[in-house]
Amino acid sequence: MWPDRRLTDLLRITHPILQAPMVGPATPALAAEVSNAGGLGALGSAEMTPDQIMKSVAELRGRTNRPFNLNFFVGDAPVTDPAVLARTRDRLRPWYETLGLGEPPEALPALGPSFDDTRLALLLALRPAVVSFHFGLPPAPALAALKSAGILILSTATTVAEAVALEAAGIDAIIAQGYEAGGHRGSHQPTAPADGVGTMALVPQIVDAVRLPVIAAGGIGDGRGIAAAFALGAAGVQMGTAFLSCPEAGTDPARRALLAHATETDTMVTDAVSGRSARAHRSRYAEAMEQAREPLPAFLQLYTLTDPMLEAGQDEIASFHLYGQGARLNRAQPAAELLARLVTEATAAFAKLSSGAATRRQ
Amino acid sequence: MWPDRRLTDLLRITHPILQAPMVGPATPALAAEVSNAGGLGALGSAEMTPDQIMKSVAELRGRTNRPFNLNFFVGDAPVTDPAVLARTRDRLRPWYETLGLGEPPEALPALGPSFDDTRLALLLALRPAVVSFHFGLPPAPALAALKSAGILILSTATTVAEAVALEAAGIDAIIAQGYEAGGHRGSHQPTAPADGVGTMALVPQIVDAVRLPVIAAGGIGDGRGIAAAFALGAAGVQMGTAFLSCPEAGTDPARRALLAHATETDTMVTDAVSGRSARAHRSRYAEAMEQAREPLPAFLQLYTLTDPMLEAGQDEIASFHLYGQGARLNRAQPAAELLARLVTEATAAFAKLSSGAATRRQ
Repeated sequence: MWPDRRLTDLLRITHPILQAPMVGPATPALAAEVSNAGGLGALGSAEMTPDQIMKSVAELRGRTNRPFNLNFFVGDAPVTDPAVLARTRDRLRPWYETLGLGEPPEALPALGPSFDDTRLALLLALRPAVVSFHFGLPPAPALAALKSAGILILSTATTVAEAVALEAAGIDAIIAQGYEAGGHRGSHQPTAPADGVGTMALVPQIVDAVRLPVIAAGGIGDGRGIAAAFALGAAGVQMGTAFLSCPEAGTDPARRALLAHATETDTMVTDAVSGRSARAHRSRYAEAMEQAREPLPAFLQLYTLTDPMLEAGQDEIASFHLYGQGARLNRAQPAAELLARLVTEATAAFAKLSSGAATRRQ
Repeated sequence: MWPDRRLTDLLRITHPILQAPMVGPATPALAAEVSNAGGLGALGSAEMTPDQIMKSVAELRGRTNRPFNLNFFVGDAPVTDPAVLARTRDRLRPWYETLGLGEPPEALPALGPSFDDTRLALLLALRPAVVSFHFGLPPAPALAALKSAGILILSTATTVAEAVALEAAGIDAIIAQGYEAGGHRGSHQPTAPADGVGTMALVPQIVDAVRLPVIAAGGIGDGRGIAAAFALGAAGVQMGTAFLSCPEAGTDPARRALLAHATETDTMVTDAVSGRSARAHRSRYAEAMEQAREPLPAFLQLYTLTDPMLEAGQDEIASFHLYGQGARLNRAQPAAELLARLVTEATAAFAKLSSGAATRRQ
């Protein structure tokens, strides 16, 4: 039924609907249900230890023998200027006080990039059908090793230039992530929160610039969005927010409660929580930091300073409930039912549009 | 050929493609070509005097007997806190110095809202087929008078709540303006530049909330975007940036030159030029003002302070070249040819998608 089969043929799946590999919500139970229903399930492995990855993959393989995707973050080891750290601590002190916390931490951990040689060796042993990378790609030798093992590689582009760079690196398909998307923006270099291109504009411009299949992401909440993505030239979609309300998702109760009455305007993009731009539910802390932007500690290192605030339990003041602008379209139903419904809705949208085409052909 | 004929029936046009009423580029020559080609041409009357409106409409009627749209801004008379004016002058002084200008002006003009009783009386005499409003709607008696005269009324929504309010006010169709759109965001109250909902997310959520036909706008650059808008549930599209490169458009040469090699990332939304959020080509002034946001003079009044900067001829430092994120898709061809091409492209997109629907129906 799909008008473009490049992605389904490539990934050996029935429906070109990829479940986004959201850290936390993307559990083996969710991924297995999506893959068994004909889509591509994914684990959010970016912040898992190798041991956790092995256990999750074992659990997933106990539930499905269909293809699935493991996702990793890439990037250089974080480095934060001591002056930036000191200034950020100054800026956070009033928020710590409001939240009844002590002093912001002094030192930042020297967290490495999440994708490393250990994880590469693990992937070559586990051999998932698909691996995807966020924030760019690992070095060429790692990519070559994965390709030699027959593993298909996806990565995210938020601009045309990033898509062109991904194609030149030899990957298999490109996820075009529009500004509507929840979670971290996959830009290859850190960008300001306002620097996002909407899905409607981004997808056709990337389609025009590369030969690879393009997977549209951002603001796609139901079958209408899927049909629109194909109209723009995409060969598939990646949906994250839509799966957050599934019972199989590991979505925390606070985020699940927000999703139940989400609107299109209740999120914002901020880099003041993690150090990189991400779309999440609005909070007073994030809004204040965006009003007066200053350099921030490196990605992930900033979490050391903001985690105590997020855990203070006063979500309106400081929180990081990641979801996108399409959340109002969410349905809280099992993932397999949701996937079947998305397929039915997309089919209906295609059929409605075909009436126009038929008239024209007369 | 259109899968949804509510808008073409309502507006009595052949193709549900509305040319956006861009102040400056939307000339009688452009509007006439669009209307004659079966779309809905529009004049950007918002900053015209009544005399200019009469002359433009006369010229337009000399070129077409098809329906067209006259657009107006609405809003209360601007009021600026003297402290905000003083602080803004302080902030602008270094930019004035960089640009070799003198002191920023002391006083702001008491510009009224552009839509007033004079313009209402003029519309009742001129009787255009369609009038559209930006930034909300005029008072109910004005709407009632227009409706009694058989004039169809459109207005812009940038959120679901705005769309619901427009429907309750009794207008005829809603323009859903996504964040990708160039020019001023039509939000009914001033919003921060970052507060925009992408077209892909906005359109289906508005379609679900109202019964009126929805016109999608923002990031739609060619027939693929038109087909995508219909997939999302829209009954038509409004395109502005796409028409900026037409020879009939009154687009200034500097903006035309930028459009010839535009990318998806070279615009930003800022309220630091006019006092309300608008998407325009990036400039150092706008970027600096967005880094450190502070209250600004009222909409239109701020122009008094920024106009000397815009006229200094150093566009990288300060400019206001309004266009959207889809500008890379622009084609510099006559408007009638462009409209015919958009129809052909949309038809091709519908036909491609119908192959999926046909397979499913077997």
